[in-house]
Amino acid sequence: MVRWQPGSRGRLEVAALALYEERGFESTTVAEIAERAGLTERTFFRHFADKREVLFGGAGALQELLVRTAGDVPDSASPIDVVSAALEAAGGALQERREFAVQRQRIIAANTELRERELVKLASLASALAEALRQRGVTEPAATLTAEAAIVAFKVAFACWVDQSDKQDLPEVIRYALNELKTVI
Amino acid sequence: MVRWQPGSRGRLEVAALALYEERGFESTTVAEIAERAGLTERTFFRHFADKREVLFGGAGALQELLVRTAGDVPDSASPIDVVSAALEAAGGALQERREFAVQRQRIIAANTELRERELVKLASLASALAEALRQRGVTEPAATLTAEAAIVAFKVAFACWVDQSDKQDLPEVIRYALNELKTVI
Repeated sequence: MVRWQPGSRGRLEVAALALYEERGFESTTVAEIAERAGLTERTFFRHFADKREVLFGGAGALQELLVRTAGDVPDSASPIDVVSAALEAAGGALQERREFAVQRQRIIAANTELRERELVKLASLASALAEALRQRGVTEPAATLTAEAAIVAFKVAFACWVDQSDKQDLPEVIRYALNELKTVI
Repeated sequence: MVRWQPGSRGRLEVAALALYEERGFESTTVAEIAERAGLTERTFFRHFADKREVLFGGAGALQELLVRTAGDVPDSASPIDVVSAALEAAGGALQERREFAVQRQRIIAANTELRERELVKLASLASALAEALRQRGVTEPAATLTAEAAIVAFKVAFACWVDQSDKQDLPEVIRYALNELKTVI
């Protein structure tokens, strides 16, 4: 039986993000991350498939949270209310890891390949949200339009939240972005 | 002086797209494209940097058309009317090359790398459109929200237009998608 060292995933994340910022994502090796965390490469690979997964490993949980929340909203809710509830739940989860999220964003912004990966991740979230709406009986193209527009608001809200110094909560910034979207459209 | 053979670009496009469909994008070589078109590899590289550019070489002109149209709309127009005019102009240009656009879309849908490249292209179009709105005095986050939401409508409209058999014009489908977006948001 393998005994998992408590907290080793978190230590690897802290070490990896620090190194990605200091040396750049490309130039950092898994060996360096493990060494900085005081762990072995073997332990790294128990938690992450590769060094990119330190940055994108949370996408599955975020998607699952979006889809589950969208499924739990009462039947009477309109599509836009469904996606708002889902985004606010996701925003709440990210708010709890603000420091990680902000540092991660700086690392992604500095690297073309990672920026492209982030676009792919957001496109997957939009597809999953559109599917959750279809499961609720929303037809096309309304399901895709609502889900994709929601992800646009999420992306803009996230960028504002990362940049701001006054640390307004992400769910609040998401509500603001969705309202702005209603106004401009 | 190099004499450019009239129509060689078009012949290379036709040959490339046919081969990408027959053999897959990855498996096709520039030598095969040139041979199928009855031209030399040298001629291919006068028109395209690589075989991917046959599919993405039009992105610059499309972006230029979007930005120019957004700049030409009267000052009194609202941001959403500006982006609607820009998208309809882009739709008109794509409508004129419907066969190429539909075949290109099938090829992109069949290849992960190309799908990711298409996401990057759409993100660039959204950034350029947001910048065009800022040039018109639209503030943030309204500029980015309007531009990104417009590209969402464009993407959905494009997918409908490619799928449909009754060949409704793309500018018309774009107007429909923008109206649907207003309804769902």
